[in-house]
Amino acid sequence: MQNFKLDPKLYADTWPVTDLGLCQLLLMNDARYTWFILVPQRVSLSEIFELTPSDQTQLMAEISLVSKLLKQMTNCTKINVGALGNIVRQLHIHVIARHDDKSAPDLAWPGPVWGNGVAIPYDDHTAQSVINRFTKLLTSVE
Amino acid sequence: MQNFKLDPKLYADTWPVTDLGLCQLLLMNDARYTWFILVPQRVSLSEIFELTPSDQTQLMAEISLVSKLLKQMTNCTKINVGALGNIVRQLHIHVIARHDDKSAPDLAWPGPVWGNGVAIPYDDHTAQSVINRFTKLLTSVE
Repeated sequence: MQNFKLDPKLYADTWPVTDLGLCQLLLMNDARYTWFILVPQRVSLSEIFELTPSDQTQLMAEISLVSKLLKQMTNCTKINVGALGNIVRQLHIHVIARHDDKSAPDLAWPGPVWGNGVAIPYDDHTAQSVINRFTKLLTSVE
Repeated sequence: MQNFKLDPKLYADTWPVTDLGLCQLLLMNDARYTWFILVPQRVSLSEIFELTPSDQTQLMAEISLVSKLLKQMTNCTKINVGALGNIVRQLHIHVIARHDDKSAPDLAWPGPVWGNGVAIPYDDHTAQSVINRFTKLLTSVE
């Protein structure tokens, strides 16, 4: 039996956060946005419809939970959810906090973040602080 | 009780396809891509997490069905799914066929389609033909 293994590019571009059940939760290493990635721990999938119906329901619940807590944590204007996979084919879902406030540094607003500009990596301390705040919120609802 | 009403911009930018149960299915009026939009027929929602868990499951099933049939119809490289809503706040989900083949006219590949270039409206005949092919596929699985 083949085991799930995170795509090397997803591994390189993110910080690990936690295991949600179905998905690995990752923090995109881009300090410009609070940007999570959910990766269903299933082998050889690139499309949502390839998941079983039960995994699809679980994926939706995990997307919804992460979105709700991200909105709570950032007080963002809008959550953006996307499953693209044009570059990295391993099924992964982006959940991103977006801000329309001119004072917030959301340079891509109202466009999508994908393909817009260049990622600014977190320093270790800031990444850990975002992860800690989010996992605290997660723990509070579990 | 307030009734569901499609956002005027979504109405203006799309062709109606069918009612999927939870969602209205629309065809984006942009001949550059085969691009569907699902709009949950619920009032005053802008985020997926605002749907009930049961509606979330149904939404995922409808996204999955449309994605699977769109892949079958277009033989595309990748399905892109996105719920952004930075411009139109009424909750809506994009399901788009994307092609990496240089011979196919996917000018935005591998970037996202949102905010890339200007829509090329369908002529009536072509739009109706896409809608007919897709509804035939839908009927075959129902």
